Amino acid sequence: MKLLHHAPLRTILRDILKKRGVCAESRAFVVESLVQTSLRGVDSHGIALFPHYCRAAQSGRINPAPRFSYERTGASTAIFDADHAFGQHAGAEAMLLAVESAKASGVGAVAVTRSSHFGAAAFYGFMAADQDCLGLSFTNAGSQVLAFNSVKPFFGTNPVCLVAPMLNEGPFCLDMATSAVSVNKLRNHKRNGKPLMPGQAYDEKGCLTENPQAARYVAPLGGYKGFALSMMVELLCGLLTGGPVGAEIIQTHERLECKRNLSQFFTAVDIARFQPPPFFKARLQKLADSVRALPPAKETEPVLVPGDPEKKCFEQRIAEGIPVDDGLYAELAELDPRFKSVLV
Amino acid sequence: MKLLHHAPLRTILRDILKKRGVCAESRAFVVESLVQTSLRGVDSHGIALFPHYCRAAQSGRINPAPRFSYERTGASTAIFDADHAFGQHAGAEAMLLAVESAKASGVGAVAVTRSSHFGAAAFYGFMAADQDCLGLSFTNAGSQVLAFNSVKPFFGTNPVCLVAPMLNEGPFCLDMATSAVSVNKLRNHKRNGKPLMPGQAYDEKGCLTENPQAARYVAPLGGYKGFALSMMVELLCGLLTGGPVGAEIIQTHERLECKRNLSQFFTAVDIARFQPPPFFKARLQKLADSVRALPPAKETEPVLVPGDPEKKCFEQRIAEGIPVDDGLYAELAELDPRFKSVLV
Repeated sequence: MKLLHHAPLRTILRDILKKRGVCAESRAFVVESLVQTSLRGVDSHGIALFPHYCRAAQSGRINPAPRFSYERTGASTAIFDADHAFGQHAGAEAMLLAVESAKASGVGAVAVTRSSHFGAAAFYGFMAADQDCLGLSFTNAGSQVLAFNSVKPFFGTNPVCLVAPMLNEGPFCLDMATSAVSVNKLRNHKRNGKPLMPGQAYDEKGCLTENPQAARYVAPLGGYKGFALSMMVELLCGLLTGGPVGAEIIQTHERLECKRNLSQFFTAVDIARFQPPPFFKARLQKLADSVRALPPAKETEPVLVPGDPEKKCFEQRIAEGIPVDDGLYAELAELDPRFKSVLV
Repeated sequence: MKLLHHAPLRTILRDILKKRGVCAESRAFVVESLVQTSLRGVDSHGIALFPHYCRAAQSGRINPAPRFSYERTGASTAIFDADHAFGQHAGAEAMLLAVESAKASGVGAVAVTRSSHFGAAAFYGFMAADQDCLGLSFTNAGSQVLAFNSVKPFFGTNPVCLVAPMLNEGPFCLDMATSAVSVNKLRNHKRNGKPLMPGQAYDEKGCLTENPQAARYVAPLGGYKGFALSMMVELLCGLLTGGPVGAEIIQTHERLECKRNLSQFFTAVDIARFQPPPFFKARLQKLADSVRALPPAKETEPVLVPGDPEKKCFEQRIAEGIPVDDGLYAELAELDPRFKSVLV
């Protein structure tokens, strides 16, 4: 296990993308998303994705110099054509457009078509929260979650995300796959060999397994309700954009020469249309503090609100560096030998 | 067990409310919501609530003749003061306002303050879907869900609901508590004595139980993710309206003389701003049919999409009547002796 410091890491990752012809804006948003997400401790959606992203940019899947276009279809709505850009670049522009609409009309909703993997959904929510909006983001994904009462997968891990500003700390951040576990966490288990929790994953035949090497599909969150939520996300993404849905979507690590045509949906709600933002933030702060003050069931572990583990991790990793396992380190060092110098 | 036919049931329930001074609009929306919900088989949120609603209207909790007011705060937003009306009346007016904003600007979002129990969230979603919108509805509720890793409850069952129109059948309908089981289902178990599923409920001390009589709190859906979703719903409801949140909310069946000050949040999204509605409906139809065609794990039970069990139940109960257990029947017969004549 190595520790990488975030500041030089950003520089090197941007340089690697630059050498591969990725435009300045895409470089900036991709690297900021991955490093921020690793700092927050969400290793499934952080810099671990970078080697794959490089391959996707070289194989023709990702357009390294996209030309975006969008159509405003109402005071609060727009359709955004991502031109097969990195999802982080398209998503950031789309969320900023949603915030602009929210500031004009109260709510902004932007559907993004012809996109690709957008990393952590929270990244876009933070942009909205910075401007005193609630930020909601959704994406569809390749079919990897077993449908409830089926032996086959249908929808992806289709996350739900809501971010909201607080008074005395970073934003409230809910960002969760609608599956019991995210597919990228499953990949991390495959890499580190740690067994999965019972009930989280299924093998090729649709039978439950705790062996990460045998695991092929993940379980929907809490059974039929998680399956229902994943279909709700697909309605907001693939159906509102007219893009592919469910099993029509090409998997992340398959056919890297093909465009994925993922769909995303971003919403910003201007808090000021409902409450004075300082009042809202103070009440959310009080609410979160009340939850944290509840008596815990496990006495050694405090009661947490969504985003608490990530806030704690962020402070630690800003100071100490981002831990990188040997497999990922070898891949990064192959992309740029300077990685040896960014160890903390 | 008795069977009641929906048409005379509607008439009698409206008459009972009329005698108690409930205004015509409130009567219409309350009865339509409860009967529609019972027809759909959601017995926890149907006519089983009626005796309690009568008590709440007589005790001073519910305002039987409300005067609504609302402020449009943007092209797509409004704050709606429910004046302590039945939640069904306020909710229906608020969703219609959201649809109106959606038709003008693309999205409508209405926060309802000073409201009360609004029954099934789906009722409002259907209104939006009827007008080619996605309809989303949310409510907060009394603190009855154990907080994740705590022995105490904090949030209510805070449901998430999305309804969308389909081509060849009634709308797609997701309407789910963010708890493992709804509190009204728990009440039905208390009434019929059937044991609860493992992991669904906790006793007074925060210990798991399957005994419905000992059960006091319900579990969050799938652990910390369900808890996070219930807090998200509280942000949209209690925090956007400035009303009470979590444990501040008076419980449904306690202190019936007190106003509950529940908060609700309604959103309508005009489908036409993203896709031609016939195209959207046809794709959603195809998506649902593809899910239903998946090979089932339990061979005797088909794979379902959200709302399927309710659609099947609706057809059956329209024809055969709504089943009512002896306890509820006795309560209804006490409210109006004509109930004896509405048996099928």
